[in-house]
Amino acid sequence: MIIHMAPGASIDQVERVINRITRDYGLRCETIVSGTTVIGVKGIASVVDEGRITELPGVERVIRITEKYKDASRNFHKADSVIPIKGGVEAGGARLTFFGGPCAIENEKQAIESAMMARDSGVDVLRAFVDKSRTSPYDFRGLELSKGLEIAAAMKEATGLPTVSELIDLRHLDAFLKAGIDVIQVGARSAQYSPLLEELSRIKNPVVLKHGFGNDLNEWLCSAAFIMSGIDREGRSAGSGNPNVILCYRGIKSFESETRFGADIGMVPLVRMKSHLPLIADPSHSGGDRKLVERMTYAFVAAGAQGIEFDIHHNPAEALCDGKQAVQHEAGRIIRTARQLHGMLDGIGIETGESVAFAAG
Amino acid sequence: MIIHMAPGASIDQVERVINRITRDYGLRCETIVSGTTVIGVKGIASVVDEGRITELPGVERVIRITEKYKDASRNFHKADSVIPIKGGVEAGGARLTFFGGPCAIENEKQAIESAMMARDSGVDVLRAFVDKSRTSPYDFRGLELSKGLEIAAAMKEATGLPTVSELIDLRHLDAFLKAGIDVIQVGARSAQYSPLLEELSRIKNPVVLKHGFGNDLNEWLCSAAFIMSGIDREGRSAGSGNPNVILCYRGIKSFESETRFGADIGMVPLVRMKSHLPLIADPSHSGGDRKLVERMTYAFVAAGAQGIEFDIHHNPAEALCDGKQAVQHEAGRIIRTARQLHGMLDGIGIETGESVAFAAG
Amino acid sequence: MIIHMAPGASIDQVERVINRITRDYGLRCETIVSGTTVIGVKGIASVVDEGRITELPGVERVIRITEKYKDASRNFHKADSVIPIKGGVEAGGARLTFFGGPCAIENEKQAIESAMMARDSGVDVLRAFVDKSRTSPYDFRGLELSKGLEIAAAMKEATGLPTVSELIDLRHLDAFLKAGIDVIQVGARSAQYSPLLEELSRIKNPVVLKHGFGNDLNEWLCSAAFIMSGIDREGRSAGSGNPNVILCYRGIKSFESETRFGADIGMVPLVRMKSHLPLIADPSHSGGDRKLVERMTYAFVAAGAQGIEFDIHHNPAEALCDGKQAVQHEAGRIIRTARQLHGMLDGIGIETGESVAFAAG
Amino acid sequence: MIIHMAPGASIDQVERVINRITRDYGLRCETIVSGTTVIGVKGIASVVDEGRITELPGVERVIRITEKYKDASRNFHKADSVIPIKGGVEAGGARLTFFGGPCAIENEKQAIESAMMARDSGVDVLRAFVDKSRTSPYDFRGLELSKGLEIAAAMKEATGLPTVSELIDLRHLDAFLKAGIDVIQVGARSAQYSPLLEELSRIKNPVVLKHGFGNDLNEWLCSAAFIMSGIDREGRSAGSGNPNVILCYRGIKSFESETRFGADIGMVPLVRMKSHLPLIADPSHSGGDRKLVERMTYAFVAAGAQGIEFDIHHNPAEALCDGKQAVQHEAGRIIRTARQLHGMLDGIGIETGESVAFAAG
Repeated sequence: MIIHMAPGASIDQVERVINRITRDYGLRCETIVSGTTVIGVKGIASVVDEGRITELPGVERVIRITEKYKDASRNFHKADSVIPIKGGVEAGGARLTFFGGPCAIENEKQAIESAMMARDSGVDVLRAFVDKSRTSPYDFRGLELSKGLEIAAAMKEATGLPTVSELIDLRHLDAFLKAGIDVIQVGARSAQYSPLLEELSRIKNPVVLKHGFGNDLNEWLCSAAFIMSGIDREGRSAGSGNPNVILCYRGIKSFESETRFGADIGMVPLVRMKSHLPLIADPSHSGGDRKLVERMTYAFVAAGAQGIEFDIHHNPAEALCDGKQAVQHEAGRIIRTARQLHGMLDGIGIETGESVAFAAG
Repeated sequence: MIIHMAPGASIDQVERVINRITRDYGLRCETIVSGTTVIGVKGIASVVDEGRITELPGVERVIRITEKYKDASRNFHKADSVIPIKGGVEAGGARLTFFGGPCAIENEKQAIESAMMARDSGVDVLRAFVDKSRTSPYDFRGLELSKGLEIAAAMKEATGLPTVSELIDLRHLDAFLKAGIDVIQVGARSAQYSPLLEELSRIKNPVVLKHGFGNDLNEWLCSAAFIMSGIDREGRSAGSGNPNVILCYRGIKSFESETRFGADIGMVPLVRMKSHLPLIADPSHSGGDRKLVERMTYAFVAAGAQGIEFDIHHNPAEALCDGKQAVQHEAGRIIRTARQLHGMLDGIGIETGESVAFAAG
Repeated sequence: MIIHMAPGASIDQVERVINRITRDYGLRCETIVSGTTVIGVKGIASVVDEGRITELPGVERVIRITEKYKDASRNFHKADSVIPIKGGVEAGGARLTFFGGPCAIENEKQAIESAMMARDSGVDVLRAFVDKSRTSPYDFRGLELSKGLEIAAAMKEATGLPTVSELIDLRHLDAFLKAGIDVIQVGARSAQYSPLLEELSRIKNPVVLKHGFGNDLNEWLCSAAFIMSGIDREGRSAGSGNPNVILCYRGIKSFESETRFGADIGMVPLVRMKSHLPLIADPSHSGGDRKLVERMTYAFVAAGAQGIEFDIHHNPAEALCDGKQAVQHEAGRIIRTARQLHGMLDGIGIETGESVAFAAG
Repeated sequence: MIIHMAPGASIDQVERVINRITRDYGLRCETIVSGTTVIGVKGIASVVDEGRITELPGVERVIRITEKYKDASRNFHKADSVIPIKGGVEAGGARLTFFGGPCAIENEKQAIESAMMARDSGVDVLRAFVDKSRTSPYDFRGLELSKGLEIAAAMKEATGLPTVSELIDLRHLDAFLKAGIDVIQVGARSAQYSPLLEELSRIKNPVVLKHGFGNDLNEWLCSAAFIMSGIDREGRSAGSGNPNVILCYRGIKSFESETRFGADIGMVPLVRMKSHLPLIADPSHSGGDRKLVERMTYAFVAAGAQGIEFDIHHNPAEALCDGKQAVQHEAGRIIRTARQLHGMLDGIGIETGESVAFAAG
């Protein structure tokens, strides 16, 4: 962390900054004075709330060097994290991991048929989405909870695949686990809802973490840090946290209205460099259009994504949710081609695991 | 709602669209055929999930005319809503409503001193924030709940003002009400978290609703519709909903990095035209800098905001949260000048209450 | 300027950075070493191209402190610049300056009638726009040049007002000046077109400089620096440059589609603090809707704008360009009310002219 | 084009809209009345300036269906355009086209060495950039023109490759052509500067057209329409225009600050569907970091880009411009691997050439 004092800042003001850094955070400072004063903080400054420095009189700007999202940062964990899911399936390893299935469980017949199509296409983890987060209260948000979970269990039984399901209402976590959901997903609209993130820090199931439409890299990885650190609202670390976070990129809001979200492809290799966590991407929810899903899948994999999550529906025209972005039989070709492409590019051109230890704040 | 079929769409495809509109939503259609087919939907199409139309084969584009956020729309409620808060204080009436106080409750002394400063400055509703939503788990997120609520009650007692407090964890709602919190605030990171919005639809206390950093007008007003409609996850309307929603504008993420958020001033008169709900704005959290708060307050009021919420701290340099954006003694001047300015502009140049009844979808 | 070296950067890499700073730019450096190395640059680093530092091996990040846009920065020119326009009219002084008139000259009758309406409303400088920059080649882009300039001269003659006109084709500058245009405007689409900016650095007429839809504060003020510095393509300063730049804010592209552009109100007081140049704003082109113009005008003035430019058309429904955003007779009320509001807020709450001398880079 | 009248619009207002469409643009209308009135425009509405409709009283909203950018639209030209460059090199054909070389010509030695490295890496068209568009007037903007063009010719001579060079100052076009530049590039800052686009409509050399940082798909393709249509400022078509436009995607400004621009990967297959023009992408200028270039290249190709333009410099640490984003020897591997990947995906999953004729506005 580097603190740049305003021109004309007094010696007292400089000392007050140094005092706060040393007393409140136990770190050391060094200064350069050359007209204005620049204070360098030594040690791991992840825990420093920069707002508490910028608020001090005479401070012009605070520049963070050590990432806030220490738990998710590759600077503190050089090797790629490989997260076991179930029965040999894992995320972040040598093999791409495909998450697929219907956008939502609508009824038993639709759910099972779509699930079988997903399995036959070669997915590794089955989407069994009981809850759907929606913009409008008038849109379909899922079947009654116990009915939905019952169908989710039937999908798992029918396919033999592990299942992923989005948890919206944190009070449903126990029911999800009891019903055999293997992977918990956090959606865009819940991505910074800390009580939910805290609940997920208390289990060890893998969590697929999306970012909000309005979140940047720092905010996304800080959400991961909520789950990983297990630090609660009062600042206590309740147990060891949940290290099993899988990042899922889905694009952000931009001024371009022709695509649903702006999926910045540079973020894929960048997140791989910045974080040791497995990274997957969601071409259905990024592009919002089945016609874009196939090529976006190849692009995400070519950019370095370690897996894909997408919507597969046996009859998209009758879907109760987002049918336009679901693929059907072509899912099999997409998965096969993506695996082939991944094999071809294996290990080329992503700088990971090379960062050396990092000492200064 | 207008549905534009792709060139070459078949008659069967057109009929399938018309069938879905008429059978699933009970509305009627009329078509223009001129090379391509355009289908106009008659009746109130708020409840139509356009995703269920775009997913049909042959559909090129769906254009919504009736807003999705019917409950919050001025097309369905012409007069300004005036929301009573407590003891004669209201939002949306002839008088500006000021919400102010410390960003967070840090300890009893800080809370009471800041509260007294806020009262002396002339605020109408006191910020008594027990919980703070933060980006990083390592930042200060509030005192232990019961301690925080106890201090909130003391602030209310000391000042005689009604209090507003952000509810993050929906499981704390009862405790908030029991502790005498008058107005519940929904923050940016919770603004699309439907379980929380549903909880707030079951009470009648006024709710200050912010929008997410990544939300547009439609998403914001749809969040209001969650609270107002009282429609639950299974599509049932559980009671009458909570009509007492106060909108609070705080700006969105933009590519400009010199301001904290981009507070689009055109949104202020626009939201006033589109919605009957009271609109306030938050210059502390938009601009992120005390130096901008005063002029932004005047601008929001000049643009048509019906109130302001801002941070007041008796000693910002020692704040545990966002001290940089809190004002001190100048709060009094700001409130007085804003009221004077509001009086000068009363009724000029905002087109509200003039919309006529709206019949087509 | 502060240069943060990557962890593990070698001594040779640090030395290469220091050499480039000292040899190529004649500045001095000081370093802090604490695990990683931080290099502070002493002296005025405006002229340092940070790209030439980030490209060096071992450099992690370059943080600019001295603004690149030195010529436009308040750090180098404390007092507000007041720019004389003509006959006592000025921009940046104690009195608001209104620029108004039709979006474009369509024909003599329309131009003169709209001009008279603008004059009667109280504008100080008349829009006499011969050229219109458009998105599509099929849209109206102005009358034939000599005809347009002839009408512009007639508008000036009829009203007695100084005129402003957008220069698009740099080869037309002489014709503009010969026809008596007093103020040259640079539009959003030309705002970073350096050959045009260089031409304007060679005259002394006031220039109203908009920013591009996609430009941030730094890019905008760097465009001002092109005009003010008079530095040509080969880095030579050809004469003294043109100091008479008036900044015109018009909002940027954002993901919100309900307003035409996102006019971030925090930018108004911020630009006033950062730059000594006069700042006006354009509510017609920001909001894109006549219904928003009046309140946006008041908001811009309340935020600290020193003038307004807006479209006035005697018959907007027949305009060949942007009729929807032009006001008519209400222009008079808007100008009068804005002046009253400006008087009321005079001098409150904008921090300008207080910056002290700034020594370090 | 569909015109939605406001609720309560009068019959006179509807007739005025219909009159303008029929008289000014020679198109026909059909209406649906159902509470509000919806007017459908029949025929090719590309040439209708929607601003001239929205400005009419009683109009609520105008929805464009036929694209404004007719010349560049696949609806009017089904097959992919293949643009010959020189000596068998083409863009938009079966083979990927690589444009590469130094960001700028700095001196003869650097230019020739970088050019040889680019040729040895396998590029098809050599970057020979005499001018550089920069944000700040203090940054390097190129050698003196005649010297720069002389070196550009030497680079061409030494490598035997066709050359591409950015034209900034439209007055230099003749000199560029005389010096043997084969392909003219239009940069982001000039992408909507119509006098330059008009100049390029009068030649037949291929033009690489970037979009501005703040431009959306419609604006970008409208800029192509300026070059292709050859329509001048007064609306006359001066000759046949220049059909040889190659689109180059480079990403837009977004709120994410960790990448230089947000390169929305969904835009690649989308632009391929919407336009018949060849599409290439620029990973150097999108990501802004050499470490991202390789994987972004593969992603762009996997998404459907028909070529790549990137910076190759023999000694990036000494570059006078953007050295950080230039690759060196790895360029050869990148080009070979990208060609292999392109071969693997040939023809899969991009919907082009399938659009049928389009009749309604």
